[in-house]
Parts: sequence; C-alpha cells; structure tokens
Amino acid sequence: MDHLTAMQKLIATAGQRPLKAEELELFNGNNMGLGALLGIRLTHIAAREVRSELEVTPEHHQPWGVANGGLYCSIAESTASIASIVAAQAPAVGVNNSTDFIKPVSAGIIEAVATPIQIGQTTHLWNVEMRQDGELVARTTLRTMIRG
Amino acid sequence: MDHLTAMQKLIATAGQRPLKAEELELFNGNNMGLGALLGIRLTHIAAREVRSELEVTPEHHQPWGVANGGLYCSIAESTASIASIVAAQAPAVGVNNSTDFIKPVSAGIIEAVATPIQIGQTTHLWNVEMRQDGELVARTTLRTMIRG
Amino acid sequence: MDHLTAMQKLIATAGQRPLKAEELELFNGNNMGLGALLGIRLTHIAAREVRSELEVTPEHHQPWGVANGGLYCSIAESTASIASIVAAQAPAVGVNNSTDFIKPVSAGIIEAVATPIQIGQTTHLWNVEMRQDGELVARTTLRTMIRG
Amino acid sequence: MDHLTAMQKLIATAGQRPLKAEELELFNGNNMGLGALLGIRLTHIAAREVRSELEVTPEHHQPWGVANGGLYCSIAESTASIASIVAAQAPAVGVNNSTDFIKPVSAGIIEAVATPIQIGQTTHLWNVEMRQDGELVARTTLRTMIRG
Repeated sequence: MDHLTAMQKLIATAGQRPLKAEELELFNGNNMGLGALLGIRLTHIAAREVRSELEVTPEHHQPWGVANGGLYCSIAESTASIASIVAAQAPAVGVNNSTDFIKPVSAGIIEAVATPIQIGQTTHLWNVEMRQDGELVARTTLRTMIRG
Repeated sequence: MDHLTAMQKLIATAGQRPLKAEELELFNGNNMGLGALLGIRLTHIAAREVRSELEVTPEHHQPWGVANGGLYCSIAESTASIASIVAAQAPAVGVNNSTDFIKPVSAGIIEAVATPIQIGQTTHLWNVEMRQDGELVARTTLRTMIRG
Repeated sequence: MDHLTAMQKLIATAGQRPLKAEELELFNGNNMGLGALLGIRLTHIAAREVRSELEVTPEHHQPWGVANGGLYCSIAESTASIASIVAAQAPAVGVNNSTDFIKPVSAGIIEAVATPIQIGQTTHLWNVEMRQDGELVARTTLRTMIRG
Repeated sequence: MDHLTAMQKLIATAGQRPLKAEELELFNGNNMGLGALLGIRLTHIAAREVRSELEVTPEHHQPWGVANGGLYCSIAESTASIASIVAAQAPAVGVNNSTDFIKPVSAGIIEAVATPIQIGQTTHLWNVEMRQDGELVARTTLRTMIRG
C-alpha cells in the first residue's frame, strides 16, 4: 500500500472518529513532502478539529534569528488542508492563506489547532491558531475549495 | 565576519545599486535558515525590486503531489522581507502574509518578483508575484513593519 | 461641545468601564459619517469588546437583492476601529480589513462583536464576527496602527 | 423592464464590447442599493476591466474626519463584483474582500479600476486599485465564486 492510499484510509476513518495514537503515528510516517521537511507532526485528526506541532530550530529561521513567517503559513496550510479533506471526505485545495504574525519565536514547540469557520458545499474556511506555551504567536484564515 | 554581518553589508550596498552576480552569490551563501532549507535563491536585490527562484521538488509537496501552499508563502516572505529591509535600510518584520494560490505546480522553476505597493515610515506593503514559464501561479501581499 | 469632543470623552470613559445605555445613546447621536449613513448603532463599548447592530434594508443591497459585501466590511471597520481607539486610548487607523462573506442576508438585524486578537504597542489585530439570529454571516480581521 | 433586467442586458452587452456613455448612464440609473447610497458611478464596463468613481463627502467619514475604510471596501466590492459577472456572464458572489488602506482621504474624487488576477471556472480573483489624483489610496483583492 503506497503512502497516499494509507493516508486516504486514515482520512476516511477520521471522518467517523478521532484517530488513535498508533493511527496518528502511521499518518505521520506516511506524510511526505513539505510537512516532513519542516518537521510538522499531526497530533489530533478528527472531523471538526485537527492539531499539529513542530519544534522550531535554526533551519526554520529568517537570517536575523527568528522563525520565518513562511513557517507559520506552512504549519497552518498543512494542518487545515488535512482538516478540510477530513471534513469534506473529498479532495480540497487551498486557495487563500492569510496569516498574521503576532509574536516572534526562536525555539521551542509551536502547537497549531485548526477549527472550522464555515463548512460549505464548495468552499471551507478554517481558523488556525498557533501557540507557544499557551500564548498566541500566529493566526491563519485558510480558504479551501472542494473538488467533489 | 559572521553570516548576518555579511548580509547587512550587502543590504547596505543594495540600497545604493542592484547587487552584482558575485554579491548575490555571497548573499545566498550566507542566507541560512528556511530559505536555505527550501532552496530559495535570490536572483536580484535592488532598492525597489527583489527577485528569487526555487526549483520545486517532491520535498515541497502536499501528500497529493502538488506544491504545498506554504511553499509559496515562504518564497514570498523570504523575498519581500529582504526587499523591505533593503528599502527601509532598517530592520523590518512581516506582520501579515496573504497568499492566493492560482495554479498548482508539481515540478520546475518558480520565479518570484517583489515590488512595493506602499513604502511608508512605519509600514510597507509588498506585492509578490510567482510565475512558472511566465504564468502566474501564486500572488502574495506582504505587510511589514519597520523597527527604525 | 462638538461631536468629536463628546465622543472622545465617552472613549475615555469606556477605557475605565463599559458605557451605560444613555452614554451609548449619546455616542450614537454624535457618530456622524458612514456609520450614520448606513445605520450602524453601537450597542456595547468597553475596553476589550465593542458590539454594534444594523438593520439590513434594500439600500444596503447589491443589484441582485442581497447585502453588498462592502456593508459587512463597513460594519466591521466602524466597530473595531472604535474598539481599537478605546483599547489604545489613542488615535488608531485601520490598515487592512479582510472580510469573509459566509451567508447572504437580505433583511433583518446583523449583530457584530469585535474582540482583540492582539493588542500591541504599535498595531492591533481585531476579530469581528457578524451574526444574524445567532448564525455567522461574515467575519473580519482588522489590523489597526496606533498613532500614539 | 425592471432594474435587474435592464442591468442584465447591459452586462450581456459588456461581455462583447465596452459599454457606451449612454449605456453606462442607463446602468448607473438602474444601479440601486449600496452603490447608489454611497454615490458610486460606474465609468467603464468591459470584459476585463471595470472602473468607477465616487466623490468623498463628510457622509463617508469616520468620526475623526477621514473616509471610513469600509468606503474603500464598498467601492471595490461594487466595482469588482460587476467585473466578475461581466467576465463570467453568470452570477458571481464575493467570498473575500481584503483591502489595504494606504493614504487617508477627506474629500475629492476617488477613481477605482478592477482588473483580473485570475479568471477560473469556479472562482475569480480581482485586483482593485483606488487612486486620487493618480496616487494610490487603497487596494483590494476580491475573490468571487461563480454560480454557473
């Protein structure tokens, strides 16, 4: 079974109930591409909420020593696009990612939570809040379109 | 001379005239962090325009085989934040990155151009257009604040 | 006492405690300009939350019979800019208004609530949710800059 | 012939060629709702470009004497939603309006130009630039969805 097929089975399951620890591990093990390159780990996948985390390292920085804004955009995109696919049980593509940067981060864990603002037939709107030690560091509104 | 000092000298130079090929090479060689991890190369640095390019590989993908939206956000952030620092000749931080995804890309070169919409005393607004073979694939509006 | 002076006194009061009914009436009576033209009434003004309401009429419509998107943007702008001035106790100007339109409205009351995402020294970020009968119809993220 | 039917005929014509002066007059005469309330006049309607203008008066102001940000959002929404309908020759609804405010305006004419960034099957992206005496005062990115 290839990576995508494994993920699709888990996405179907997550439409019914939150994934279990070993299923999340399997999901992350098959989650290739930018999420893996950056070190994003999904920590909760359910029908109306997806969470992830990432440990900030110098590889994520701007030259002047704080996390590059693109990192927050990427965390949000990776988290909420999975959330949108789970909620729609259909392919979804991001069309706009608007991320506000609130507090600079140099190291440590960032935790992201994606929750729905709107679950429409053809478009979804997701709110993603990223926190460090409970404090909001960035916030994204992601619009996706459903390719039903 | 450390990485940041080398870049700061080049940023001062770029405030006066576009960087030359060997200066761009030096800039890219010192450009650590997310830009380096993703493979972004600055190709033009001048007072009112900064350009970059990146070759899309599977490491930049979503699980379903096209570039992750966070990649475009990261290219725009990396390109326009340099542009903002060069234009201000002062530290600048991104406060909002709003990126629209226009055409999916799986491989090949993406070229980015950052040009100013507004160069204010305390805030800048940059337009970043990303193209493949001349066709627009993503567009970012980046707001920065100047820490003068 | 002119309109602006009356409002400034009420804004100073609202920094200390929520305005009372008769103070809100005074505030609305002095609130000239676009808010008055559209029929926006402030219904709660306090240090970390401002609310307003408006009754949608055909004067607010697009030619095809639903409220023009600009109406929601205007409600949000009018509500959160007051909120930002009350929170800062200093002049504040909107720099970006990003509004998502979620459900079309043709008539009836829209209620808006502005709450802070970030209260910084030089910039604020406000979330404005607009509802009809409890259902979300539009949502704005408004960034302001403080002219301290 | 009612207002909407008159406008629909003109929209069909504008899909073929730019409207003539008397057609624009007819269009504006039938353009009820928020556009009329605010005083927005369409000055050019063609398949890939729509322009409008408005004279700023105290009725458009914030209490502190400059045009309310919601005014620019409304101009952009009114202009680019017509542009989207003409380009699609089908109903279109705005889903996101992101407007950056660049220079405060107290009086005089604002001219708006809407041009396409993306004309897709299901979604359009429009850029609207608003100028006074040639100087950029606000800029909107409007996303619409086509109800084909």
